[in-house]
Amino acid sequence: MTTLLNNFRPDPELDLLLERVVDVPRDLVWAAWTMPEHLVKWFAPVPFTTTECEIDLRAGGIFRTVLRSPDGDEFSNTGCYLEVQENERLVWTSLLWPGYRPASPRPALAFTAVISLESNGQGTKYSALAMHGDTTSRESHAEQGFHEGWGTALDQLVALFGPPGRPDM
Amino acid sequence: MTTLLNNFRPDPELDLLLERVVDVPRDLVWAAWTMPEHLVKWFAPVPFTTTECEIDLRAGGIFRTVLRSPDGDEFSNTGCYLEVQENERLVWTSLLWPGYRPASPRPALAFTAVISLESNGQGTKYSALAMHGDTTSRESHAEQGFHEGWGTALDQLVALFGPPGRPDM
Repeated sequence: MTTLLNNFRPDPELDLLLERVVDVPRDLVWAAWTMPEHLVKWFAPVPFTTTECEIDLRAGGIFRTVLRSPDGDEFSNTGCYLEVQENERLVWTSLLWPGYRPASPRPALAFTAVISLESNGQGTKYSALAMHGDTTSRESHAEQGFHEGWGTALDQLVALFGPPGRPDM
Repeated sequence: MTTLLNNFRPDPELDLLLERVVDVPRDLVWAAWTMPEHLVKWFAPVPFTTTECEIDLRAGGIFRTVLRSPDGDEFSNTGCYLEVQENERLVWTSLLWPGYRPASPRPALAFTAVISLESNGQGTKYSALAMHGDTTSRESHAEQGFHEGWGTALDQLVALFGPPGRPDM
């Protein structure tokens, strides 16, 4: 599946990568990632919930979510989209705020994410790459449960949008 | 000249802005900023020199320069382009490396730069915006001589590309 990432070369020492073929059409995966009313239903791995989502779907636009823990603690994440290629690739970073302004304070988790989609029959080759600047950030992200968290969220996306739950769009 | 910046709203408390009308056609200002063989001739304010320049002119591409002081100290700057709109707007950040990877270590000067160009008769309305995440970064950039440095560099660009020095392109 390396062709998916094209210009993005994952570095095993710095990056985290989740790849899977899912039984959800590519345009539905894209909708799940880019429409707040869909995203809030699957984005937070249970038992967390997504209580807010703001999306301005263009390079330089905001991508903000608020996740709530079962104890009621809220975690706000504000990032900036860098590339928006419909049904193909979505890139954002936690290091910048909308309009590309440097985030302040520096985010606890400094990473750039690349979601890449490719049609695979009726389904989609799905790739989620988290790029870091150093091994410490990578390990911190891994310890916070990148694979479990992003994997569970993807399970939730599939449960929502895969057959037989697939909604009319 | 606020229309130049459009999607970018300078924040007086966080940003630094250099605006000027120069007697250089817009396409030559663009060439000066985007072709290494031109950039090395004007980019470093005297008495500094630009000893290296690497440009991959696309969103996600590298923008790297090495500046040398009169004492021979070298300062390497590696950034990543975010927007490349020929003859109109060039955006890059020091917070990311090529391919949008988070820079590591965090750069001493964390900023995103926006160069905006607009035709003005035979010349160009020129705007250089440096956006920061906090006042400390802004002040540090100002103390390092943003206005003098970028102003002197622009003088050098004009001396090279304005009449009568204007080369055939």
